[in-house]
Amino acid sequence: MSSPAHRHRVVVIGSGFGGLAAARALRRAPVDVTLVSRTTYHLFQPLLYQVATGILSEGEVAPPTRAVLRRQRNAGVLLGDVVDIDLDARTVVSRVAGRETTTAYDSLVVAAGSGQSYFGNHHFADFAPGMKSVDDALELRGRILGAFERAELAASRGEDPTDLLTFVVVGAGPTGVEMAGQVAELARRTLAGEFRAVDPAAARVVLLDGADRVLPGLPERLGARAHRDLRRLGVEVVLGTVVVGMDADGIDVRWADGGTARIDAATKIWAAGVEASPLGRLLAERSGAALDRQGRVAVEPDLTLPGHPEVHVVGDLAALDGLPGVAQVAMQGGRYAARAVARRAEGRSPDGRAFRYRDKGTMAIVGRFRAVGVVAGVPVTGLLAWLLWLGLHLFYLTEFRNRVTAVFHWFVAFAGTGRAERTTTEQQVVARVALSRPAAGPPSRHAG
Amino acid sequence: MSSPAHRHRVVVIGSGFGGLAAARALRRAPVDVTLVSRTTYHLFQPLLYQVATGILSEGEVAPPTRAVLRRQRNAGVLLGDVVDIDLDARTVVSRVAGRETTTAYDSLVVAAGSGQSYFGNHHFADFAPGMKSVDDALELRGRILGAFERAELAASRGEDPTDLLTFVVVGAGPTGVEMAGQVAELARRTLAGEFRAVDPAAARVVLLDGADRVLPGLPERLGARAHRDLRRLGVEVVLGTVVVGMDADGIDVRWADGGTARIDAATKIWAAGVEASPLGRLLAERSGAALDRQGRVAVEPDLTLPGHPEVHVVGDLAALDGLPGVAQVAMQGGRYAARAVARRAEGRSPDGRAFRYRDKGTMAIVGRFRAVGVVAGVPVTGLLAWLLWLGLHLFYLTEFRNRVTAVFHWFVAFAGTGRAERTTTEQQVVARVALSRPAAGPPSRHAG
Repeated sequence: MSSPAHRHRVVVIGSGFGGLAAARALRRAPVDVTLVSRTTYHLFQPLLYQVATGILSEGEVAPPTRAVLRRQRNAGVLLGDVVDIDLDARTVVSRVAGRETTTAYDSLVVAAGSGQSYFGNHHFADFAPGMKSVDDALELRGRILGAFERAELAASRGEDPTDLLTFVVVGAGPTGVEMAGQVAELARRTLAGEFRAVDPAAARVVLLDGADRVLPGLPERLGARAHRDLRRLGVEVVLGTVVVGMDADGIDVRWADGGTARIDAATKIWAAGVEASPLGRLLAERSGAALDRQGRVAVEPDLTLPGHPEVHVVGDLAALDGLPGVAQVAMQGGRYAARAVARRAEGRSPDGRAFRYRDKGTMAIVGRFRAVGVVAGVPVTGLLAWLLWLGLHLFYLTEFRNRVTAVFHWFVAFAGTGRAERTTTEQQVVARVALSRPAAGPPSRHAG
Repeated sequence: MSSPAHRHRVVVIGSGFGGLAAARALRRAPVDVTLVSRTTYHLFQPLLYQVATGILSEGEVAPPTRAVLRRQRNAGVLLGDVVDIDLDARTVVSRVAGRETTTAYDSLVVAAGSGQSYFGNHHFADFAPGMKSVDDALELRGRILGAFERAELAASRGEDPTDLLTFVVVGAGPTGVEMAGQVAELARRTLAGEFRAVDPAAARVVLLDGADRVLPGLPERLGARAHRDLRRLGVEVVLGTVVVGMDADGIDVRWADGGTARIDAATKIWAAGVEASPLGRLLAERSGAALDRQGRVAVEPDLTLPGHPEVHVVGDLAALDGLPGVAQVAMQGGRYAARAVARRAEGRSPDGRAFRYRDKGTMAIVGRFRAVGVVAGVPVTGLLAWLLWLGLHLFYLTEFRNRVTAVFHWFVAFAGTGRAERTTTEQQVVARVALSRPAAGPPSRHAG
């Protein structure tokens, strides 16, 4: 299959959990791996909300992919946004700043993941950033912390700061639950006492979802427990409610009973939906494979593209009945694909075994010392769940150098009241301040 | 002096070393302090180059001013850029996003510091960012690390990556020396082995200065030692050379002998000069005080504005014969001013003692395990100097929570080859990539 002139060439698209797992699992295979990625980093996405809320630095959740693969001599990293895949010529075209690079492959692993979905309301993206990249997290950090600054300024001028102290999180899956919990803790524990004209502890945190419960991916009892824990943190959980409009100053919702309302809120955070990378559509068009509603590719039981045993699709981009879009599915899929690729490179035929996902569990932390989840099939809640969360994340961060400082930052945030990574750029704070308040207006007096 | 209706009101302008020291030194005084600052953070500026070169996170060198002052009940923070000071009405006007806030004072401490000076060539700022804010440091991080990515892409297309692997640091004071040393170590130790098409260790690092020696603020012998240490790290030190032009792709210089040359270099870093905050000119115009060439205000020996015993000017904004623009001068000036303010608030007259700077020393680290400096009047070099540097910085970071992780990050960078904080946003990397390379051009082949 591979020509005698070169080693078997593997292109991996994506530096997320699936792509990185595939690249690493090929470290002893007789192949040359090129990992093509739009970002220079491997993102530990489940902790991104902690970057947005000032607990962790961006370096702690997003080490450079080159550094992670540094010792793997058969792997290289190519920065680029993949814009074309030629399944006949077996080439991948990536683009950076208008310049294209074409990379040939003998085997291809497509792990391009998913992006935020606004369900067709693309303009929501300006008002409610999602949580898919370091850019998103730092933008949200600037908005969240900037909102308290703006509230202080408004109150010191005698204006009502309520909308500035209202935070709406859309989507009550794990990311939304964790985000809402952390915004509440940030306001009530970390920032309390740091302001003079407003009381950050009075901030309103609203968690909205169209479904009738939180954490729909977990057993009902755990969702109810998370709901109760969130309410204890002072999060308003509003279910059966969909977002129908949004602007810089607020959000329009339709309640379960059909009534509509406006929530004045300067800060909106989107954790509601994902849609597969556009590469899904491209692969489907070229191969005739089906796409599901979220734009994921219907793959064969061995994760290959129909008719293309040399092309594997893993992670969020692959439609596998019932499997959730979580890190574990992507990592296991990446390793599974790597084994198949290694067999091809060695000239062996596929082993014929279908991909089987081993569910090790799902968790969401609600606040400090509180989490809910299912680990190895067993439901866990409260402090025990939180300790399990800590242990699991320590385990998964093990390979990365930043585990040590991440642990220290968790200690600062959970045992103490501080947060070590609240720093935002001037550009972020001032641009946010400028976004929605009118530039003109009478100067006001602030008696110091 | 203060009206009976309120406590003595102190406005401090600036959250740098001078302003923060003044505010903190007032913690037991019978005053109400309002610290007005353009940024939300207190910047430990001497470590900013470590943020730019991926050693420290922005949170480690720039904790929120509110967090630092959290326990000080008589102090508050107001975000804003000071645009006017009315010396007669005793008010300060600050602006955020076009909205103004006026704050009244009984005593004023102006510690607005300095910004980068491009000696009239304002357009240099686009091509060679300085090192004055978190924005600068993250911008530089994106440019420096992005240049290696761009070089890899260029080389994989068969283009010459030399200009992308050339880094020019302008200014051989402590900041320039430390920056040049760290870019060299980043290239030769951290990034070596992470790329496939280029060798980062072959990067060219040029340190330029118009003077005839490095570190002019230190004894000649120490400058010579730093020069030698830099050369050992592979830094080209080019003295007696001034910058006469700059664009996205390079820099034009005039040598000491009058000849001119062009250095093709995608990445330029400006560490050459500072100029005082524009508030210096405003104070001079309003009070009749003199300004020196760098825009600093000629103050009385007790750091007050001539004719205004209630206005103190400290740090980089005050012209004090021969005193360097360093953190220690600002901190000591801030504390000195705070003592005078406390006396006024208590209704006592000034103690009549002039401000006297106690020089505790100056240091610059050249690379790992190598520094030069003068500590308590004694010149130190090499490993001993480096250990002293470490000890002093630990001491000064003591009050801040981030000391623990900073130490760990130093361990990672100096004992190992890694750097924990190399993460840049996509916006930074891609915008940089787009800056100077033409968008059009034939697609090229990259055989993985």
